[in-house]
Amino acid sequence: MGTHNKPDKKINLASRMDFIEPFHVMRVLKRAKEMQKDGHDVIHMEVGEPDFSTPEPIIAAAKKALNRGLTQYTPAAGILELREAIANFYAERYGVDISPQRILITPGATGALQLVLAVLVNPGDEVLLPDPGYPCNRHYVELFNGKPVAINSDAQNRYQPTLQDIKQKWSERSRALMLASPANPTGSVLSKQELSDISRLVLKQSQGSQTAALIVDEIYHGLTYEEPGEERTATALSLENTDNLFVINSFSKYFGMTGWRLGWVVAPQKYLEALDRLAQNIFLCAPTPAQYAALAAFSDESLEIMEQRRNEFKKRRDLLLPELSNLGFKIAAVPQGAFYLYADCSAISADSMMLSSRILEKTGVAITPGLDFGMHRPEQYVRFAYTTDMERLQQAIERLLKFIQK
Amino acid sequence: MGTHNKPDKKINLASRMDFIEPFHVMRVLKRAKEMQKDGHDVIHMEVGEPDFSTPEPIIAAAKKALNRGLTQYTPAAGILELREAIANFYAERYGVDISPQRILITPGATGALQLVLAVLVNPGDEVLLPDPGYPCNRHYVELFNGKPVAINSDAQNRYQPTLQDIKQKWSERSRALMLASPANPTGSVLSKQELSDISRLVLKQSQGSQTAALIVDEIYHGLTYEEPGEERTATALSLENTDNLFVINSFSKYFGMTGWRLGWVVAPQKYLEALDRLAQNIFLCAPTPAQYAALAAFSDESLEIMEQRRNEFKKRRDLLLPELSNLGFKIAAVPQGAFYLYADCSAISADSMMLSSRILEKTGVAITPGLDFGMHRPEQYVRFAYTTDMERLQQAIERLLKFIQK
Repeated sequence: MGTHNKPDKKINLASRMDFIEPFHVMRVLKRAKEMQKDGHDVIHMEVGEPDFSTPEPIIAAAKKALNRGLTQYTPAAGILELREAIANFYAERYGVDISPQRILITPGATGALQLVLAVLVNPGDEVLLPDPGYPCNRHYVELFNGKPVAINSDAQNRYQPTLQDIKQKWSERSRALMLASPANPTGSVLSKQELSDISRLVLKQSQGSQTAALIVDEIYHGLTYEEPGEERTATALSLENTDNLFVINSFSKYFGMTGWRLGWVVAPQKYLEALDRLAQNIFLCAPTPAQYAALAAFSDESLEIMEQRRNEFKKRRDLLLPELSNLGFKIAAVPQGAFYLYADCSAISADSMMLSSRILEKTGVAITPGLDFGMHRPEQYVRFAYTTDMERLQQAIERLLKFIQK
Repeated sequence: MGTHNKPDKKINLASRMDFIEPFHVMRVLKRAKEMQKDGHDVIHMEVGEPDFSTPEPIIAAAKKALNRGLTQYTPAAGILELREAIANFYAERYGVDISPQRILITPGATGALQLVLAVLVNPGDEVLLPDPGYPCNRHYVELFNGKPVAINSDAQNRYQPTLQDIKQKWSERSRALMLASPANPTGSVLSKQELSDISRLVLKQSQGSQTAALIVDEIYHGLTYEEPGEERTATALSLENTDNLFVINSFSKYFGMTGWRLGWVVAPQKYLEALDRLAQNIFLCAPTPAQYAALAAFSDESLEIMEQRRNEFKKRRDLLLPELSNLGFKIAAVPQGAFYLYADCSAISADSMMLSSRILEKTGVAITPGLDFGMHRPEQYVRFAYTTDMERLQQAIERLLKFIQK
């Protein structure tokens, strides 16, 4: 499954399925698993999931809730305690005052993205988003028969769209701009000033009663690598105007809760009724055990574990950056967040798909080809995920060195 | 939130939101909660959720998985062990041989319905479904800008569509028929013969390469009240032809796992690639702790608990049926499954919405007005859920008797 680009025409799938692609990395993963079965030692640098499991205090909170029999439906927007806990977190960490009413708990950030796009996008409406980017973001637009409009983004702008790009791509049918900070696959982070400039520009694109929306994916928030003394990365919620702003976040990455499927969206007041109504219908609620577990995610004990992990990720990034550059993988924009390095491999090969295959076969190091992140020069890029420990990363570098030297 | 029928035009929501209604029962629920706060004793017969919490063996399996750190993503289609366990269950309980490959684990039956409709329905395509019915089913069609076509169904046909109805409503744009057995709100069950006749008819409606699909919601399966010696209710998967059949099921109702958000779909082979590709993109996976928990749902110990609960539901149904009839609530089609009684209240009031309000205010018994289940004579009907214990149901009957006698 998941290997065809185009569905079988004989079964007359809905047309949206022509545009929803499988993850190409699945092929890498499949081959890597075959190699492991044959006794090869594979180093996984293709996986977009932290190698840390859920912190113990969160596990303990889940078990406690299960012991109390808390397994029934919750309100569609989530339990109030969790919405309040998230609001508190915004206040404490970012100094931003958000009403818990504006926070809807969702089945993963994926659920949040579905809600927001379903509420905003009519068939034929356009949503602008940078390329390279997380492919599912484009697919959520296709899901509702909207039209994703790629903004080709390059290293000189840290793979983020410029004001000029946005202006140029905006059309009468454009409904929203989607950004990510930190971004996947580039780890690129937007400053508060950049966010503010973009936000102002998007709002200006509003036509009549049609408010242009800004959707900011912050699911890698927290996993940013500020130097001591530097200000913490800004959330888009700290902007002056948030009337057209949807911020998506998740317990998956920073909080280490991938499999629990729990995220949230902070939405403008006037959209809450529609989002809640839709969530009632298409989700009923986010998973209840996950919601009670997540209540423990903001405790001092949990946050300490997460900060240790953040430091570990930073060490890995700082190890890989110079080593990969030495090998000829050009990382022009130093990633300030997430756990990815998006590397220009054109000095080594003109075909990143072929290259990642060869690297896997010859060295047992699994990486993701650029094609998974869009159509803008994917053949020049590969993504390294540092979701593997330091020792294994060292081994990967040694293997890659031998491969390159041949 | 959730109280308007129509969204605020000023914010230009996507047009699909005009057709996605809130649950009207939310108003009942809200009022019931206010009354409870004021010290009134409310008997809840409006809630579509079993009053039993998750069986202990399932809870224990969840805790065991958490202790083992099983909190990461699973494959999009779910863990193979669970898909195999479900296939075994079909074999043992129904004597039906289903390949685990055809079973996709989803975030609730809601996730399964989203997948199937997204894969089948283009904007403007029609999906036929009976009215009264579970309102979300209609809304999933709207979600993808399809057009739900109601088949008005009445007590004389046990609220299920007749072959003639289906033929008559089928058009060039019709893509699928959705059924439920047992159905919400009516508890109506389709026999194998009826399913088979409908299936054959639907397949005949296929146009050229366009296969007409049959979607059968079996989320109340298991909660059926056969008399001793009677054959167990048939699953649509026991039909001869399943090439155009999608069966949706869930761990929520029979297995008592509502809040965990876990369901599945059994799909025809040729649709698996598309369903899996979409699931990868829009869900990543169903909640991991829930998947491991559900592995214990098929143990003898768990099934024994579920059968006890089924018997308890049957007792409640058998208590309520004659009593409500005596009170003037006409239940023409004896419900053979689920935990609902859909009662014609026109002998008591011409306006079921008003009646359910008055009953709540005067007696503290909360029930659901017909409007939540469609547009076909909703003013004549109310739904009683027997998700409350025998003692409380007795009290409800006493209160209703006083109300009616006044």
